[in-house]
Amino acid sequence: MRQRRSNCPIACTLDLVGDRWTLLVVRDLVAGKTRFDEFLASEENIATNILSARLKLLEELGYIARKSDSIDGRRVRYRLTKSGKPLRRLVREIADWGLKNLPKTKLVSGVSD
Amino acid sequence: MRQRRSNCPIACTLDLVGDRWTLLVVRDLVAGKTRFDEFLASEENIATNILSARLKLLEELGYIARKSDSIDGRRVRYRLTKSGKPLRRLVREIADWGLKNLPKTKLVSGVSD
Repeated sequence: MRQRRSNCPIACTLDLVGDRWTLLVVRDLVAGKTRFDEFLASEENIATNILSARLKLLEELGYIARKSDSIDGRRVRYRLTKSGKPLRRLVREIADWGLKNLPKTKLVSGVSD
Repeated sequence: MRQRRSNCPIACTLDLVGDRWTLLVVRDLVAGKTRFDEFLASEENIATNILSARLKLLEELGYIARKSDSIDGRRVRYRLTKSGKPLRRLVREIADWGLKNLPKTKLVSGVSD
């Protein structure tokens, strides 16, 4: 963990998810995606190294957990942990803000449910 | 303007403010700060080059405007424009999320008013 820049809740939130990609991975988890190749297939075309780094970060923060697929044990699946579930609210609020304030934005299915 | 990665409202919002600093400058504007040296004095210790870049970006996006101080014309003051005012809601929502989910965070006065 990086040291906090301050105790401001905005600064602390940005310390965790203040980048262009982390919350898109969370969005995909909220939408029901669980596998690396599913995140990779999202239309923003995240690079594999960035995706790996963000998954690792989210796991280190305790917000996601990985486990082997019950059918194909070589496949890893990710899910939001109990600690990570509050991120759903953050993703939805940012989605709402974008929908209201940025023209021609459209939410993928699964996130607003 | 960068090209959009997708029309997802989350991706588009992160394209604008998905970094560790931009929303802290907006927070300071919401809290009533208007001058470069006031932003610089915030406890996160933003670097001058980052602050300059973020102010330039926000100005290019039409979210803030600068004008000379009415008393000391050499001083520049920044304010949120009409287009930029919706950012106040985003800052407050992220502040609320942090206050609720990140231990020992505390909001500076002026932001929640």
